[in-house]
Amino acid sequence: MNIVLAPIAGVIALLFALYLSNKISKADAGTDRMKEIASYIHEGAMAFLMREYKSLSIFIIVVFLVLGFFINWLTALCFIFGALFSILAGFFGMQVATKANVRTANAARTGQNKALEIAFSGGAVMGMSVVGLGLLGVGALYMIFKDANIVTGFGLGASSIALFARVGGGIYTKAADVGADLVGKVEAGIPEDDPRNPAVIADNVGDNVGDVAGMGADLFESYVGSIISALSLGAIVFNDNKGIIFPLILAAVGIISSIIGSLFVKGDENSNPQKALKNGTYVSSILVIIASAILSKTVFGDYKAFFAITAGLIVGVLIGQFTEMYTSADYSHVKKIAKQSETGPATTIISGLAVGMYSAVLPVVFIAFATILAFFIMGGYGSSQNVLAGLYGISLAALGMLSTTGMTVAVDAYGPIADNAGGIAEMSELPKEVRKITDTLDSVGNTTAAIGKGFAIGSAALTALALFASYSQAVQLKAIDLLNPMTLVGLLIGGVLPYFFGALAMEAVGKAANHMIEEVRRQFKSIPGLMEGKAKPDYKTCVDISTAAALKEMVLPGVLAVVVPLLVGLLLGAEALGGLLAGALVSGVLVAILMANAGGAWDNAKKYIETGEHGGKGSFAHKAAVVGDTVGDPFKDTAGPAMNILIKLMTIVSLVFAPLFAKFGGILLNLIK
Amino acid sequence: MNIVLAPIAGVIALLFALYLSNKISKADAGTDRMKEIASYIHEGAMAFLMREYKSLSIFIIVVFLVLGFFINWLTALCFIFGALFSILAGFFGMQVATKANVRTANAARTGQNKALEIAFSGGAVMGMSVVGLGLLGVGALYMIFKDANIVTGFGLGASSIALFARVGGGIYTKAADVGADLVGKVEAGIPEDDPRNPAVIADNVGDNVGDVAGMGADLFESYVGSIISALSLGAIVFNDNKGIIFPLILAAVGIISSIIGSLFVKGDENSNPQKALKNGTYVSSILVIIASAILSKTVFGDYKAFFAITAGLIVGVLIGQFTEMYTSADYSHVKKIAKQSETGPATTIISGLAVGMYSAVLPVVFIAFATILAFFIMGGYGSSQNVLAGLYGISLAALGMLSTTGMTVAVDAYGPIADNAGGIAEMSELPKEVRKITDTLDSVGNTTAAIGKGFAIGSAALTALALFASYSQAVQLKAIDLLNPMTLVGLLIGGVLPYFFGALAMEAVGKAANHMIEEVRRQFKSIPGLMEGKAKPDYKTCVDISTAAALKEMVLPGVLAVVVPLLVGLLLGAEALGGLLAGALVSGVLVAILMANAGGAWDNAKKYIETGEHGGKGSFAHKAAVVGDTVGDPFKDTAGPAMNILIKLMTIVSLVFAPLFAKFGGILLNLIK
Repeated sequence: MNIVLAPIAGVIALLFALYLSNKISKADAGTDRMKEIASYIHEGAMAFLMREYKSLSIFIIVVFLVLGFFINWLTALCFIFGALFSILAGFFGMQVATKANVRTANAARTGQNKALEIAFSGGAVMGMSVVGLGLLGVGALYMIFKDANIVTGFGLGASSIALFARVGGGIYTKAADVGADLVGKVEAGIPEDDPRNPAVIADNVGDNVGDVAGMGADLFESYVGSIISALSLGAIVFNDNKGIIFPLILAAVGIISSIIGSLFVKGDENSNPQKALKNGTYVSSILVIIASAILSKTVFGDYKAFFAITAGLIVGVLIGQFTEMYTSADYSHVKKIAKQSETGPATTIISGLAVGMYSAVLPVVFIAFATILAFFIMGGYGSSQNVLAGLYGISLAALGMLSTTGMTVAVDAYGPIADNAGGIAEMSELPKEVRKITDTLDSVGNTTAAIGKGFAIGSAALTALALFASYSQAVQLKAIDLLNPMTLVGLLIGGVLPYFFGALAMEAVGKAANHMIEEVRRQFKSIPGLMEGKAKPDYKTCVDISTAAALKEMVLPGVLAVVVPLLVGLLLGAEALGGLLAGALVSGVLVAILMANAGGAWDNAKKYIETGEHGGKGSFAHKAAVVGDTVGDPFKDTAGPAMNILIKLMTIVSLVFAPLFAKFGGILLNLIK
Repeated sequence: MNIVLAPIAGVIALLFALYLSNKISKADAGTDRMKEIASYIHEGAMAFLMREYKSLSIFIIVVFLVLGFFINWLTALCFIFGALFSILAGFFGMQVATKANVRTANAARTGQNKALEIAFSGGAVMGMSVVGLGLLGVGALYMIFKDANIVTGFGLGASSIALFARVGGGIYTKAADVGADLVGKVEAGIPEDDPRNPAVIADNVGDNVGDVAGMGADLFESYVGSIISALSLGAIVFNDNKGIIFPLILAAVGIISSIIGSLFVKGDENSNPQKALKNGTYVSSILVIIASAILSKTVFGDYKAFFAITAGLIVGVLIGQFTEMYTSADYSHVKKIAKQSETGPATTIISGLAVGMYSAVLPVVFIAFATILAFFIMGGYGSSQNVLAGLYGISLAALGMLSTTGMTVAVDAYGPIADNAGGIAEMSELPKEVRKITDTLDSVGNTTAAIGKGFAIGSAALTALALFASYSQAVQLKAIDLLNPMTLVGLLIGGVLPYFFGALAMEAVGKAANHMIEEVRRQFKSIPGLMEGKAKPDYKTCVDISTAAALKEMVLPGVLAVVVPLLVGLLLGAEALGGLLAGALVSGVLVAILMANAGGAWDNAKKYIETGEHGGKGSFAHKAAVVGDTVGDPFKDTAGPAMNILIKLMTIVSLVFAPLFAKFGGILLNLIK
């Protein structure tokens, strides 16, 4: 087998994305009013991306120079490619998502099935762009440089963009959302997505920049990171290039499986769209499992790699299930929160936090379980070669979980497109039946979004674990020993970073939302005829507020995530940095799960009450549940997801700068000694 | 120097406690009405303790037998002593605290200074009982058995009782508090501590069982744990018994310093009582620092130990300062939460959580800093002997922080006594001036309680770190290597335990509070003339509800904390268990700080608004702040403090059972291999 198959599969994914994109473009965009509203969203989203990329260019150039001078220029070049490819994926995905939204709304005028197809195709463009550009980049760069260490630069590029896309996108979307809701729904008493609300366009743009571009960049990073980790370990474990061939071909197989799976996302007119989406996911997962068995036997002569891959894949699916269990109103946890809302917001918050805390237990135990399994199947204790093979097994488990990323992102990005379609239908005053179809699609999107979040956290954890193993090899540490106080100190500092990071993100949302609230109030007061629908609000100012806030507030967390591991590595040494990475991993994963699931559970408890339970809309319980939902917003969409990036980015920064730490690390430590 | 000085100092502390107790008993308990109310509280508290100890006896016997059969009978015997001494300290402290409360209220009729003296003396009895019984126990048992490993049994006994006292006490106090507040203050609109409220006695009992007995047992455990850790490491590091003499004598010095310091707690009639309490703390800290310099030079011939001790002591004081910074209304954080309350409960919660998360950063960094400092001053890298000396340094830092425990507990237990005094004054309808004095004393108590909580967490972290070092020696591990996936798995599982534990505790409070709410509502409805003050409520049923709930709900967390480390050690091995302890330490400390400080900040934001800011009592902002305060209650008084015990108890369980793990550990691991 030739590794050229990897970039070829990448190109196939991109061609498929292009095909889907053309199909979407050809669909009718509906009435003039619909086109007008869609153009606002499109322009807002693209304007944000452009300004984001512009701000990022400074950061990219600085890191490029640092890499070039302190590591080497080839790694620096790979870094540029990683950043560019991530940007391209986000750009392409957003272009199409903001076309698919209005066409989904229009298709909903003829029926649910057609609308589902367009919304999912829109998501699939993002999915295929992510895996296509990811595998094309890693595959081609590895073929050119034949050195996994250099290709890590690509991963760093992907991670850097991911951080800003996730944190910036998260701040953007929640500032707009909270602003639109608090003043529009609560104060002015107009419905969600009402065109009179000045923040409504910003809110819809936010869905795209947060849930399409942000999520895409997050999984682009995980995807690339897991492949790179497998490459870097595979290169050491095996003398021939088996260890390289396997992950690259497996990723290629994953892409083809995702394409085939996406063809199975077809529903009947009245069936639940959730079923169609699940079909697609199951088909691609099963295809990957079968292919990995054949591939494992062909490349390694046994089925060990197959088991490691499958362990990762199954844990990924299980985490999705757990997430659904804790965040869907079909299960007891959300119902309990809804019940607790009867005694007011305090009990809503307490029970939601308790659910979030409980929900961390099983995913973490299963990640731990997959880690052990993969380690002992592929290698184990004994010779250092054996240990390395075990670590390689962990990277394969991560890769297994991420092999169907194309499909996962497609299902995930489908959500905000359906959400947008609903918004456009409302703002264009389309008939009730249309809104009903978009509502059905949207409610499915909420579940897939929650599952997607769980998957993103799980994959981030496994990827970070795999990259952590690569790091330990790169800095040539024999052990990262917890009996060494420096490791413990690293562990403590690493553990507290997600708290600092999370607090920053939540405060950023609070500040930005306050600006938005003031602006919306101002417009309601100062624009005559706005409430009567005779005058148009100034959408653009609201879009600008979210954009400016997101760009400003993402700087400090972004810089922190890069600078702290560098400082700790240089001052306290590679072992302390290892401790830091482990501490951040554990603490970050826990906080991320807590926040994502508490947020999702509050959201759905509110929706559950809105179906008429516990007094229904407007009741005392509903008001309490709204408080929970509002607290959950920055939890699940800003601070929580930012953790994924934090733990991966810090690990890959450490991996890329490993040569530096191996040589000069621990300046302060050497002084003390 | 002879180590017999240690138990002698312990006896001196107990004699001083006896002297103070007699002084308190002699003071006048006031009017018949006051005596009656005080007797309710006293009886409720003692009834709870008795029932708690009765339930615990089963647990104690089981663990005693397990220890005897699997470790040795001497350790098992020490375990019994540790449990008994902790029980004795709690019992004695509570006896006196529930006498001091009413006498403080009566003294407040003559003036603030006299009231402060009695309240503080009451706290000092608890403080002196803790350190007296702690040092007497450890010192005497070490003199008898001359084996630090055996004496660890004493630590395990102390820890076990602490767990139940803290968790049970925490559930008790918050169930009563929430029940009394929600129905009494919010629904019925009667003031705090109104005698018509059926839950009012349970609420006052709760202050004693949670903040006196629970806190005392927590610090008893830290105190004993830090001494034992220093003994067990000191015995290995030094050939002669220097390593033993130093910690024991230092603890003795700490007791004498605390006694002297307590004599400085004297205020003028109109001065701030906070100043008097701080004076006492500073005097005892300075005395310990001076004495440790002399002791260090005398025993070791240099000042290294002095620096390690001082590092711990200073970090302890600093953590107290940080806690004040984040939880007192004199600083910006609490003011910001109060301001955010203007936009409703959601923003109150978000900003409080952000403050809690921020507040974890500095304490953790300072703990890390003290750890490095102590390690490199006393030892460092190089020979294993040198590393051991460094670990001994860490245990000295912990001991340094805890050397003034007598004073810390005294200041801390003063709070609930003053709080109770206020309640008794209110219920006995004493004049307004009296209530004003008790209010002043109480508000100081709130600050000292917050600081005390910070100190308890910090000391738990350092003690657990020191015990962790002892554990690694006891299981004879050369490394606890994060590159070993078993360690990582342990780290992940350890990290999630505080989440599970916290969720259990918060749910327990919710359930118990619901029972209490129903009972209070029932009494208001069914007892004729109650609201008019013509009939008496049935206090006893409310006391019983809290008692039963606390005893029932503490079982699962208690058993978990003992069984999980045993299972992990036996199944996955000593290294995985090491990972688990480290993971639980990091995650537990962070959650504990977040919960304690967010809770404290919400509490004071509410009080700040009640002074008239942002609309004052009854305003929209005030209602939002009350939600924050209610969420904060189980945070700061139940789930948060339970973390301290969890991390210490799991570590000491691991330490005591180390011989078992060293021999039979890793059954499952060996099967996989």
